Amino acid sequence: MTTAKRDTYTPETLLTVAVRVFNERGYDGTSMEHLSKAAGISKSSIYHHVAGKEELLRRAVSRALDGLFGILDEPGASRGRAIEQVEYVTRRTVEVLMAELPYVTLLLRVRGNTKAERWALERRREFDQRVADLMKAAAADGDLRADVDIRMATRLLFGMINSLVEWYRPQAAGGGTDGEQLAETVVRLAFDGLRTSR
Amino acid sequence: MTTAKRDTYTPETLLTVAVRVFNERGYDGTSMEHLSKAAGISKSSIYHHVAGKEELLRRAVSRALDGLFGILDEPGASRGRAIEQVEYVTRRTVEVLMAELPYVTLLLRVRGNTKAERWALERRREFDQRVADLMKAAAADGDLRADVDIRMATRLLFGMINSLVEWYRPQAAGGGTDGEQLAETVVRLAFDGLRTSR
Repeated sequence: MTTAKRDTYTPETLLTVAVRVFNERGYDGTSMEHLSKAAGISKSSIYHHVAGKEELLRRAVSRALDGLFGILDEPGASRGRAIEQVEYVTRRTVEVLMAELPYVTLLLRVRGNTKAERWALERRREFDQRVADLMKAAAADGDLRADVDIRMATRLLFGMINSLVEWYRPQAAGGGTDGEQLAETVVRLAFDGLRTSR
Repeated sequence: MTTAKRDTYTPETLLTVAVRVFNERGYDGTSMEHLSKAAGISKSSIYHHVAGKEELLRRAVSRALDGLFGILDEPGASRGRAIEQVEYVTRRTVEVLMAELPYVTLLLRVRGNTKAERWALERRREFDQRVADLMKAAAADGDLRADVDIRMATRLLFGMINSLVEWYRPQAAGGGTDGEQLAETVVRLAFDGLRTSR
């Protein structure tokens, strides 16, 4: 028998539970029944807070997207040479990813089967495009190597950053990975390379 | 009504179908029923070729693992300075990933719920460890920057390489991405960095 918990959720705390379940089961594989069980409250209690699972997805990915787009409004993203802006945005993207790990993880796993998912993918592509534009500007300034394809390099850069959701764990054994050092390592690797000399 | 196809499969061609289904549905989510439907032959015909889906997984990830471990036996992986070996292994890993895309994709998605999956994860970790050892040797030679954590850098390097399974498509519109150029871009980005100067 399931003992129903007294519903003390707010839309915000309910979101935390929903994002965890979405990330475990996949959004498509999560039913209102799964959410109700995970939260320990009835489906009608959930409907008291939100219109349905699509609203939960929209709120969750909005949190990730607000964090990411927020970076582009920071002074560091528009000050100085384009290459400085690209490095700034790269560093901050890693930081936002670590700070909003479950939300960004969900955003990166969205498949596009529903309207809310397609909207999320669209917004994500928009962010990627903004960074790609900065990369192009840095290349035009002559600050990026001419012998690599910039579109390819941008995809690899995002590939590296986004791979963090697969292994970065803030509370890992031994106190976890140092977040600040990680952001710095991504920037150094991508822009200065790992080699000392050739 | 399903019209059963005459069974003209070999274990090899059956593997191609199985890997596609595993990658689409996830290994855990694939039943012998799904494989039978996708192949258009009966379950008992499949059992004529292989002992079950675990054998198919083992064969599939073996193909990926043989490709990856094969790199380490090539002269370029043990000749010259450690940094040259690391760059060689990085380039060849990208090439094997592209050449064996569905098999490496499956290997990277294995979750570890069954014995065959745990074996695959174990072997994959072994490969990663071999590359990590090369990275450490290159760092000891003073050929990798001292201001980045080598374990972290190794994870980021693999994160970047492995992200290719998410977006690299050999037959994409416009003739697809140039594979050789892609392998070279990964090496240049990771070891020389994207910046021209500081």
